Amino acid sequence: MRQRNKPWADEFLKEHNQLIIPNPSEHKGKWKELFGNDHPIHIEVGTGKGQFIVGMAKQYPEINFIGIELAKSIIVSAAQKVLETESDQSNILLLNENASDLREMFDINEISGIYLNFSDPWPKNRHEKRRLTYKTFLEQYNDILIPDGSVIFKTDNRGLFEYSLVSLNDYGMKLEEVNLDLHDIDDPTNIMTEYEEKFSAKGQPIYRLKARF
Amino acid sequence: MRQRNKPWADEFLKEHNQLIIPNPSEHKGKWKELFGNDHPIHIEVGTGKGQFIVGMAKQYPEINFIGIELAKSIIVSAAQKVLETESDQSNILLLNENASDLREMFDINEISGIYLNFSDPWPKNRHEKRRLTYKTFLEQYNDILIPDGSVIFKTDNRGLFEYSLVSLNDYGMKLEEVNLDLHDIDDPTNIMTEYEEKFSAKGQPIYRLKARF
Repeated sequence: MRQRNKPWADEFLKEHNQLIIPNPSEHKGKWKELFGNDHPIHIEVGTGKGQFIVGMAKQYPEINFIGIELAKSIIVSAAQKVLETESDQSNILLLNENASDLREMFDINEISGIYLNFSDPWPKNRHEKRRLTYKTFLEQYNDILIPDGSVIFKTDNRGLFEYSLVSLNDYGMKLEEVNLDLHDIDDPTNIMTEYEEKFSAKGQPIYRLKARF
Repeated sequence: MRQRNKPWADEFLKEHNQLIIPNPSEHKGKWKELFGNDHPIHIEVGTGKGQFIVGMAKQYPEINFIGIELAKSIIVSAAQKVLETESDQSNILLLNENASDLREMFDINEISGIYLNFSDPWPKNRHEKRRLTYKTFLEQYNDILIPDGSVIFKTDNRGLFEYSLVSLNDYGMKLEEVNLDLHDIDDPTNIMTEYEEKFSAKGQPIYRLKARF
């Protein structure tokens, strides 16, 4: 997901450092202090322009959400979405970070849910290790999630979904739900990402799974 | 899969009792004697009109195949397909049986592969126990399969495939391969069932998984 460079993005991030938190490792184990409550914390790895996480935060006010997005020019759009919400959405924070090791940012058992939405499929075999459902990532999720916490993964990419089913099973995760055509039935609780809206409109099936360790 | 009654079917079965074996429990543990060799034995549960198993038997002459089909009027068609093959296909046997307990017919570790093709989806929750990927069936497969033996399952039924992924994972089976659109790429080694030919021609995706215990 590439966008034009936004030279004002740095300035914007600095101005909104209560929303897009710099140096997240400093808050490891203490995220509830930033939220100011004990609600469960869910994270989205690869938040993009934020439609999903903003929708989720509205739908579930009793859950705190943290969206992680590496691309500066994109996380700015997510932040703007948060700022535009009518009620001051106090249950979202954003991190402009590479999610290569979530354990640097989150403590053991600090997180209750992890969302992976339309992650980069990295279709070449030699890039397997970069897929967010590769075993080293699963290891991280396992560490930061509470014992009952779940990983919820959506994609339109068949190859990545097939791979992920095998990888999660191989890791010993428990599949709780598999849906091979999410939009077959209209589900008002399914918050769509921007990408999901575009692709499901083309009639492409959207796959989803929910699993835990 | 219902067909007109075939009153001559009983007569036909009796005539061909070297191909459609009566009283299979008598051969439990001794199927290799009937085949006259030590080749691995694969079974298909729900053989239908036999296109799959006859195709497989031609493609893999070093494997012995046993097709199980409850419907008398249908297994007759499978038997006719075997009899029509040019070479006398000596690596197929058929059983006109209910597969409700395979352990009555096969011994522990007697079978090397199990095929489930387009099994009845039994979509109602209260019929879950009848689905061929329900845990009690998996238990049977586990008992009769050699340790490395695999279950290969194909279906066009989304609900049954979703259910089966969860059920096999829950049972602790290892998913070796998941394919969510088998006919996306033309695979000459994929032997189609009659049903598969019809449904994939309509552009319906065919799902396949391969798993072992």
